[in-house]
Amino acid sequence: MELKTLTPRTRIRRSAVRDILAFHNRPDMISLAGGLPDPDSLPVAGIARSAQYVLSRYGGIALQYGTTEGFHPLREYIASMISRNGLKTAPEQILITSGSQQAMDLVGRYLLTSGQVFTTEPMYNGAVQSFELQGATIHSLACDEMGPTVEALRKIPKYSKGIPEESDAGPAFRGGFRSLSVPSGSRASAEKEGQTRILYLLPTLGNPTGAIIPEGRRQEIRKILQDSDQWLLEEDPYGDLIFDGSRLPYLSQGSETRSLLLGSFSKTVSPSLRIGWLRASEEEIQEIVPLKQAMDLHTNLLSQMILHRFLEDVDLDLHLSRLRQIYRQRMEAALGYLWDANLPLQPETVPVGGMFLWIKTDVDTDALGRAGLEEGVAIVPGSAFFSRAEEGKRHFRINFSAVSVEEIRQGMERLVRAYHRIRGS
Amino acid sequence: MELKTLTPRTRIRRSAVRDILAFHNRPDMISLAGGLPDPDSLPVAGIARSAQYVLSRYGGIALQYGTTEGFHPLREYIASMISRNGLKTAPEQILITSGSQQAMDLVGRYLLTSGQVFTTEPMYNGAVQSFELQGATIHSLACDEMGPTVEALRKIPKYSKGIPEESDAGPAFRGGFRSLSVPSGSRASAEKEGQTRILYLLPTLGNPTGAIIPEGRRQEIRKILQDSDQWLLEEDPYGDLIFDGSRLPYLSQGSETRSLLLGSFSKTVSPSLRIGWLRASEEEIQEIVPLKQAMDLHTNLLSQMILHRFLEDVDLDLHLSRLRQIYRQRMEAALGYLWDANLPLQPETVPVGGMFLWIKTDVDTDALGRAGLEEGVAIVPGSAFFSRAEEGKRHFRINFSAVSVEEIRQGMERLVRAYHRIRGS
Repeated sequence: MELKTLTPRTRIRRSAVRDILAFHNRPDMISLAGGLPDPDSLPVAGIARSAQYVLSRYGGIALQYGTTEGFHPLREYIASMISRNGLKTAPEQILITSGSQQAMDLVGRYLLTSGQVFTTEPMYNGAVQSFELQGATIHSLACDEMGPTVEALRKIPKYSKGIPEESDAGPAFRGGFRSLSVPSGSRASAEKEGQTRILYLLPTLGNPTGAIIPEGRRQEIRKILQDSDQWLLEEDPYGDLIFDGSRLPYLSQGSETRSLLLGSFSKTVSPSLRIGWLRASEEEIQEIVPLKQAMDLHTNLLSQMILHRFLEDVDLDLHLSRLRQIYRQRMEAALGYLWDANLPLQPETVPVGGMFLWIKTDVDTDALGRAGLEEGVAIVPGSAFFSRAEEGKRHFRINFSAVSVEEIRQGMERLVRAYHRIRGS
Repeated sequence: MELKTLTPRTRIRRSAVRDILAFHNRPDMISLAGGLPDPDSLPVAGIARSAQYVLSRYGGIALQYGTTEGFHPLREYIASMISRNGLKTAPEQILITSGSQQAMDLVGRYLLTSGQVFTTEPMYNGAVQSFELQGATIHSLACDEMGPTVEALRKIPKYSKGIPEESDAGPAFRGGFRSLSVPSGSRASAEKEGQTRILYLLPTLGNPTGAIIPEGRRQEIRKILQDSDQWLLEEDPYGDLIFDGSRLPYLSQGSETRSLLLGSFSKTVSPSLRIGWLRASEEEIQEIVPLKQAMDLHTNLLSQMILHRFLEDVDLDLHLSRLRQIYRQRMEAALGYLWDANLPLQPETVPVGGMFLWIKTDVDTDALGRAGLEEGVAIVPGSAFFSRAEEGKRHFRINFSAVSVEEIRQGMERLVRAYHRIRGS
């Protein structure tokens, strides 16, 4: 059996990554723990110029309430961007969110109550938190080097076949808002019973591994989705960070029914602005809007307007190509030190882009993380990326995007010292 | 029996107010529907200056990820502000949220699953939406002209006495995160059973009525709370908008156990920035932080820094005193036209501050709202402010803060024409 059923967590773990962020302010600490973009590449001058433009051009409009759907010109920009990447999208299919983290929370509230999430592990720890908040049951799919296996995907049950181990599924749709807004029929009734199933994937430069699901496997996944009644939740925060500047077609492309796509400007422009987006059908967006209203009325309008002006004003492709060059250089530096150290501290695969290395070792990485902090380097223990914290104990993640090559060198020295301390004890 | 039990709504209503906001872009429409601050008083120059300061002083830090709790200097500012208003508060008791709407959503996720909310009606329509999203049961408390009656408040049951009509309460705590993070005992077990009870009040310049719970009644409410095990959720968006510049002591003052206070800068500085806050005990804030992390990581940091600089830079008291003067003038204009019209379109009470008039009439206000739109004026039908949409049919709300005296005159003329059309038909 390829499916591994995990019971819902009994409480939300504090994000290990975000707790470790607190160490950023210690001047001697080298943090390889965050998922932060390069601080020196953040477009301070461009954002300052855009802020002045927006406030002098639009005045009070930029400080007033906005619409829940988002600033329309920004929705247009995002729709064009996605369309250029091969997935035809209208502005009305875009909802602006407070980061893609909120888009995920919205999707959870829209589809799940105590539904089922199928995904690959390790996975983005923020997704674990978000699904936990919905009380969803997380199922881990068997993987090979290309992503979730066709065999595992085919075993995701359809509504008619029931859900494995559904004792945890519980009575669903507390508020019941979804049950009235979907057409009656098998989907609606299955959702009423808490049996919504979401396939959650981050197919390009997955966090933490940096893995890519290649196009061949994507085609197989699309075929399975077309023949199924589950939802696809595709997240794409790193799609523009393949070092050679190439892009893979969205998984959603050609499989657009029950397909939700999340994106963010946190990795490409600025995280502080908290601007992400959700792409769905126009009808689904309209069903989701009342949830967003109840959650925070709308996303920060001033920042949406500043971001939109910035995107119109600068050459984003040039900005991204600089980021890719910097990140490639830093990853190569990190790999060089790891290889030179010649210790059991090696990535299983060398990513072709992104911000992270996923490193396998032969010691307990919770202990390594603690020893690292004492030596002055922060990493994220692998358990943060699994729905069961007892997994991932021999892996950890390092981030190379937010530190200089010199800091990477020092950080690696400290990490090696921490490793030897654990090994020696 | 003073308690009126309302069953959970079967779906989230789109906010009538926010849907009507779409009409703001029609050049001929006079909107008395929103809850918008005066557009000409929004501090464009001050925010522009603050944005430049923050970006040149802090550079990339202002565009990077922030902490979930919020920008510490802003937490300090808010804590001092609340302390100055009489409620001693430490910065660690403040969580910065994406507007007070998100603070309410956070509270809902922290305390409710399908719990019980006791409040007065009519009430802020965003609160209705938020509680609906949690699947809470809303109980309407009997009121007199001073607010909820002591008799009604005393009848709110304690855990040991069970919840009235609890068939709707359902199985609670889907994710169960709360159940592990509270001390065991009667509170925790009651919460596990979905029996959390929240008393939600907006005691100063309630929306939509503009009513104030006077200090005498506040003291009685505090006494009841001290002898009870329910939570108090106090919202205070308009506390600085009493026209004579006075302030009432918080209801939370002197009754601080299980007391949550929400505030916002949307009515005093700018709604577009989406910055609100939640005050709780330091321990409760730490329990709520993981929920905020899962929801959107943190509130827009650039805007928090800009707002903080703005608050340090300008004389907020002077800004507020100008706002109060403008709003008083506009309310008096609106009242003058209504009195002159000499029709059954009259507020039951004349508010001493705020942004709204709550008007009683003798026609169906859903119909009046539609006729108004055809005449070129937007109002909010009273039903938007009740948990059961069949109530409030003889009331409507107008907003006077976002329109000039001349627009108020025109809007009232159009409203009178709409009234005569309904009356005549």
